[in-house]
Amino acid sequence: MKEMAFQDYYADDYSHCYGCGRLNQKGHQIKSFWDGDESVCRIVPEKHYSGGMKNILYGGLIASLIDCHGAGTAAAAKAQELKIEMTPGAMPRFVTASLKVDYLAPTPMDTEVELRAKVEEIKGRKVTVSVTLSAEDTVRAKGQLIMVQIREE
Amino acid sequence: MKEMAFQDYYADDYSHCYGCGRLNQKGHQIKSFWDGDESVCRIVPEKHYSGGMKNILYGGLIASLIDCHGAGTAAAAKAQELKIEMTPGAMPRFVTASLKVDYLAPTPMDTEVELRAKVEEIKGRKVTVSVTLSAEDTVRAKGQLIMVQIREE
Repeated sequence: MKEMAFQDYYADDYSHCYGCGRLNQKGHQIKSFWDGDESVCRIVPEKHYSGGMKNILYGGLIASLIDCHGAGTAAAAKAQELKIEMTPGAMPRFVTASLKVDYLAPTPMDTEVELRAKVEEIKGRKVTVSVTLSAEDTVRAKGQLIMVQIREE
Repeated sequence: MKEMAFQDYYADDYSHCYGCGRLNQKGHQIKSFWDGDESVCRIVPEKHYSGGMKNILYGGLIASLIDCHGAGTAAAAKAQELKIEMTPGAMPRFVTASLKVDYLAPTPMDTEVELRAKVEEIKGRKVTVSVTLSAEDTVRAKGQLIMVQIREE
């Protein structure tokens, strides 16, 4: 059986995201998992997600992947804190309050990128997450996210 | 004759960006123009660029649009400073050093979004730009960008 990713536990109504929604047929459908204290997500972006130059990955995609992987990580960390039993639909859902990306080096195309996230702080509904994006064993971008848990009605 | 956008003056080699490259057939191909001291870009995002919920625009797209419109604005401002005559290929090209987006309110789907950018500072090859993204006359996100001009060989 395939391991369930953070995003597989989002409720259907919250699963339409172009970056990480399992119900968005045209989107990236990224999958994030715990790897010790960190979370990890790996993806080989499609050829058309180039930056200005053909051989460099699109910075907007880098920001997007950092955002979605960070949102999933915030949710999974909050679920652990709340001791939520992981069943489909049980994952809390976060929105991004603030996203900062520092681009350190160009990211090559046609290769896997690896995102790693760490939860910096959980303060009520607010979770701060730091993320790195690497390719060919070099960190290419760093992200800082402030995520806020959606209030359920 | 159709007015030329900032992005129409990028050299071919720099025109492959998924967000703003006129040669990227699958991308957004955004177009930015001066409007007085500000620059403006308008786009109606396609339906599949939803966020977690179907009726909310994808935050990753918001970051991406802010990034590309900011890059174009930095380039156009630098071109003005250098008094470059605008012919195809003459536009300088910038990469993003840092991108910060604050998400203030959800952005609805199925409506035009308007990006407006202001150049805060030009310091050699470094240009700082602030951007707002609005929909239905309400600012939904604010961006701060540090852009760096690519050195030509």
